[in-house]
Amino acid sequence: MKSKNGVTRRRFLSTAASSVAASYLVYPGISRALANGAPSSTEAPPLPWRDQGVLNLANSPYAKLHSVPVRAVTIEEGFWSKRRKTNVESSIPSMREQLEQHGRMDNYRRLVGKSDAPQKGPYYADSDIYKWTEAVGFALQSGDIPELRKVTDSMIREVVAVQEPSGYLNTYYVADKVSQRMLPHSQEVGHELYDLGHMLQGAIAYYRATGDPTLLNAGAKFVDDYLIPSYGPRPDKKPIVSGHPEIEMSLIELYRTTGHRRYLDLAAYILKGDDRIPLEPRQITYMYCGVPFTTRTKLEGHAVRAMYACCGATDYYLETGDESYWKTLNILWEDLSKRQMYITGGVGARGAGEAFGNPYELPNAEAYGESCAAIGNMMWNWRMLAASGEARFTDVIERALYNGINSGMSLDGTTYCYRNPLAFDPSSGEKIRNPWYDTTCCPPNLERTFASLPGYFYSTSKDGLYVHLYDNSAMDWHLDSGLPIKVQQKTNYPWDGDVQLTLKPSEPADFTLHLRIPGWVKNGKVVVNGKPVENAQPGQYLAIHRRWSPGDVVTLNLPMIAEVIASNPRVAENLGRVAVQRGPLVYCLEQLDQASTPDFSEVSIVVNSKSLTNFDAEYKASLLDGITVLHHNGALNEAASKQVELYVPASPDTPKTQAANLTLIPYYSWANRQPTPMQVWIPYSRS
Amino acid sequence: MKSKNGVTRRRFLSTAASSVAASYLVYPGISRALANGAPSSTEAPPLPWRDQGVLNLANSPYAKLHSVPVRAVTIEEGFWSKRRKTNVESSIPSMREQLEQHGRMDNYRRLVGKSDAPQKGPYYADSDIYKWTEAVGFALQSGDIPELRKVTDSMIREVVAVQEPSGYLNTYYVADKVSQRMLPHSQEVGHELYDLGHMLQGAIAYYRATGDPTLLNAGAKFVDDYLIPSYGPRPDKKPIVSGHPEIEMSLIELYRTTGHRRYLDLAAYILKGDDRIPLEPRQITYMYCGVPFTTRTKLEGHAVRAMYACCGATDYYLETGDESYWKTLNILWEDLSKRQMYITGGVGARGAGEAFGNPYELPNAEAYGESCAAIGNMMWNWRMLAASGEARFTDVIERALYNGINSGMSLDGTTYCYRNPLAFDPSSGEKIRNPWYDTTCCPPNLERTFASLPGYFYSTSKDGLYVHLYDNSAMDWHLDSGLPIKVQQKTNYPWDGDVQLTLKPSEPADFTLHLRIPGWVKNGKVVVNGKPVENAQPGQYLAIHRRWSPGDVVTLNLPMIAEVIASNPRVAENLGRVAVQRGPLVYCLEQLDQASTPDFSEVSIVVNSKSLTNFDAEYKASLLDGITVLHHNGALNEAASKQVELYVPASPDTPKTQAANLTLIPYYSWANRQPTPMQVWIPYSRS
Repeated sequence: MKSKNGVTRRRFLSTAASSVAASYLVYPGISRALANGAPSSTEAPPLPWRDQGVLNLANSPYAKLHSVPVRAVTIEEGFWSKRRKTNVESSIPSMREQLEQHGRMDNYRRLVGKSDAPQKGPYYADSDIYKWTEAVGFALQSGDIPELRKVTDSMIREVVAVQEPSGYLNTYYVADKVSQRMLPHSQEVGHELYDLGHMLQGAIAYYRATGDPTLLNAGAKFVDDYLIPSYGPRPDKKPIVSGHPEIEMSLIELYRTTGHRRYLDLAAYILKGDDRIPLEPRQITYMYCGVPFTTRTKLEGHAVRAMYACCGATDYYLETGDESYWKTLNILWEDLSKRQMYITGGVGARGAGEAFGNPYELPNAEAYGESCAAIGNMMWNWRMLAASGEARFTDVIERALYNGINSGMSLDGTTYCYRNPLAFDPSSGEKIRNPWYDTTCCPPNLERTFASLPGYFYSTSKDGLYVHLYDNSAMDWHLDSGLPIKVQQKTNYPWDGDVQLTLKPSEPADFTLHLRIPGWVKNGKVVVNGKPVENAQPGQYLAIHRRWSPGDVVTLNLPMIAEVIASNPRVAENLGRVAVQRGPLVYCLEQLDQASTPDFSEVSIVVNSKSLTNFDAEYKASLLDGITVLHHNGALNEAASKQVELYVPASPDTPKTQAANLTLIPYYSWANRQPTPMQVWIPYSRS
Repeated sequence: MKSKNGVTRRRFLSTAASSVAASYLVYPGISRALANGAPSSTEAPPLPWRDQGVLNLANSPYAKLHSVPVRAVTIEEGFWSKRRKTNVESSIPSMREQLEQHGRMDNYRRLVGKSDAPQKGPYYADSDIYKWTEAVGFALQSGDIPELRKVTDSMIREVVAVQEPSGYLNTYYVADKVSQRMLPHSQEVGHELYDLGHMLQGAIAYYRATGDPTLLNAGAKFVDDYLIPSYGPRPDKKPIVSGHPEIEMSLIELYRTTGHRRYLDLAAYILKGDDRIPLEPRQITYMYCGVPFTTRTKLEGHAVRAMYACCGATDYYLETGDESYWKTLNILWEDLSKRQMYITGGVGARGAGEAFGNPYELPNAEAYGESCAAIGNMMWNWRMLAASGEARFTDVIERALYNGINSGMSLDGTTYCYRNPLAFDPSSGEKIRNPWYDTTCCPPNLERTFASLPGYFYSTSKDGLYVHLYDNSAMDWHLDSGLPIKVQQKTNYPWDGDVQLTLKPSEPADFTLHLRIPGWVKNGKVVVNGKPVENAQPGQYLAIHRRWSPGDVVTLNLPMIAEVIASNPRVAENLGRVAVQRGPLVYCLEQLDQASTPDFSEVSIVVNSKSLTNFDAEYKASLLDGITVLHHNGALNEAASKQVELYVPASPDTPKTQAANLTLIPYYSWANRQPTPMQVWIPYSRS
């Protein structure tokens, strides 16, 4: 295909529907898309839209795992069902109202004379709409919600109505700011390509839900008509820096959705950086872009930027197999998992610059741990998992999902954390959960994550099926071989670790079932049709190759035992402290549950050979939407709470303590009652 | 006195000298000042300029202590002499060159056509010159340095040459920025009054050194002709907010220097705030001004601003005895000493906003602890001491001076710390000591502090003499009664705690000698002429009332024993750690001194009944300009340095350790060799 500056490229998908309430059945779908701007001979045709997963890896040469569509997995009554119901019934609708109230849609209406309101929100305000649209897109992939569909169709049409003939679409760089569009400085700080990236992701999710290509066509037009003709590495084109990485992964997903290699090529160029936009060292650190991604040696700078850059780079590896990328990604992953990640899966320790700190700089009360960064962490590890099939990445996904992401939304789904500290004192006056932030990246990001969750449970591979996550659910899909297969999960995970999987291939067949044994498991057991399977190693996928028949039953026993976790001694704030984890859940103390201990400064977990298992688990259905609490006979050092002076001579004696009943709750459920102090890393004593 | 808008007020001091090298003897001094705008009947005449101390408290009704002039005390060969020699011979001259190189004087020259250079430095660049001038002023109070005097005289004349007829003098708000002068927004962020405050402090120190009122007259003209006629609480005047507190204490010192009450009244108005300049809560927190000082309940916001505001408020109490101020100041001091101060006397934990954190938020590696804030802490406590005569304030002065301030300048006097962390890892790439910062507040602030040090050794009181600090020195002054007295100190403080004071009143006389017994002293002994004096309580002044005769000898024995200090358990990063202090000096570990321990993560101080005194002190004359190092048989937990994973199951067993020789150096001397890790708060074990 040729493209010339100023020549409007044909859309690859035509918009056939005029009714905003039209069912997705009336859309032309992929066949029309292929007719209008079909992939060239080197471009593989993409899967039908209904069959595309969270990522569409069907044609990705270096993906060991392939996605199972969101709609192919139904999450049933269990741990995630309440959260997902709240997400669809409360969070997504209330966020739409917030976006309206805060003028995010009026920003579009104003440009076509339908609103007199002034521009509202930061220069990246458009991304709020797109991320919310993506959440809707994933929600609709689990089943139609006509009201939500109707209002989103309408919003999408209001969005695309302001697209300029050039393809440009952004509500901030208009009127007197037109001259600033895509200037190098604007690219560095202005988020135009960040907005476009979220537009593409929202468009793709909505397309995969409905087949409606309206927003997708608009996003592709921006890329095809505005970007590709005028920007790129050639001397006669202008340079690009992504500023806030996001465009990279969305361009590659656009490639996967349409089959058009030009989008992958553009992403490759952006990942490489263009030295015609010279950056200062602090910009290169902070923005995590603008120089070849493969020159990175550590995580640094703005955490969400870094995570999104890693997502884009892994997507690039999945398509190209470029070993220099894989090497870099593994170095960065080592940095993540060995030096930079909270036990909750949160990343980005510093509030200043929302940034990674130095190695092992993981403060608790001051932790930033932005919800978006934990989500970025999960998204990156999902890509690393697809590239490798290695369970160490799934362990990070589970850690982030159940803890540092799950904490980001209140149980009622109406308030959100921007930062997710691991210790908190409400006397600071800080309100940690809020219904709205003017930089409202986290709320819709959480919503899209929970809505997309079914897509993270399974993958297929050349040799069979991978099971990543455990919850009551039903899968109805097929293996890469084409064999239809259903899988039913029955479990009380994560409150206990017994899982029963019933496999129903359409006919008996040889394939491998890869069952994830989480890294925290001790003495895990796997049984197939009553017969034990050996070699279930924690932090590995257990590969069970056999002839599977309809009705075969696999049971996992993953003992849920509260475990006391110590930190690397280089983490300054965790010295003398331990955390408690049970299965995938990190626990915390909230002051209001400790009737007998008025002050955290006097409380400790007892760590010795007897006490390490000295936790009683109790399921409380009426507490915090139903949680398993842990009871522990801790120690109380009364002298501690009485200390007024800041610095005193150290006592030569071990402090005298008495027994104290401590009650711990899962970290994700903190700050859902009245304000109260909280801590994850709790002092320990050996008495 | 009346003042009318636009009417030029007569200067209170006339500039008689035309030669820049003129001796101070040719200046008209205070008698001329009194003639030109003499204090009214309610205004007490100030002391002669030569007799004014760091603060001139001679007429301050609520000052229990009165200053002894800098020139009355000669610091002799000992702990501070090297630092002070370096300060005068290296720091002050090299900083002058830096100021010239960075265009700080050209900013003035440009305005009178003597330079083509563009404006350089931040909008508060003028304050650099004034703080440096104050350092020179204090230095010259210890004796003339003709070359330094000459160059400073010349600089002062270049400064005053740009004063406008209106009295306004600032090199930033000129040309196209004239219209921004003293707008409410400019006052909030623009530092015009901060610059003026430092101009006044510099002018006063220079006047007290030389009798030269040139700069002082210019500063007073700014206040008298520009501020007072047009700004103030009356409805027909414009409102003031200080923005960065500094003007308050300098106006009160101007009052003390001239006797003119209008300066105190203006300070009182600024300390109260003016609600005609409405501020957002975050501004009220950050700027620590703009609302009545007496409404403050805690230290918060920008640490230097808060400390300077407390200085001004204490100065106001010293002049007025306003009890609501004294109550507030004591509440804030409790907050400082019980919740907000590093063991080094540094304050302001957070880099973001250079601000106080939450209570007990005292991170070590991330500590900000700006040199200027530690100096502000010392200045505030000096005022609290003057108001009360209580040694708890002197303990803070000593803590800040010997540690968090003394660390701020390299031993060679040419590089400076902006922040003073309590742990450091050079692999972060940060350079902690630098010859220049474009916001160069700290370097001249350190210089003025070391130059003014003799003025902090003694005070007089109605009943006698206070001794605050110990070092080899000679005082030649008089009691409040007028009785001439000399005091000679002989000591090796702080390397050992034996001090001999020889008192030489001009004739035998009854008075009280108040000897400071530092708070860290255990079993301190005081002997007068060979006879023990009872009741030497740490953290108190020991009052010895007797008839003192020339040649009376007082000896103090303040045993210097290394002490292991524990932190309040609410300080998150100090849990499981201890610090080591010996006398006034806080110690630290530098990695390069630990030959046998390659990694800090494995090292611990042993804390048990035997080991608490298990430190050997060794004076090393050739190390770091001469320091006493401490040797300790610590413990080495080799497993610690081998831990790669971030989170591991806690071991039920106490870690196995082996003995390790640790060598500690005084904190102030850190980072004076090659880059190496450092820590003040060191893990401890009880093995």
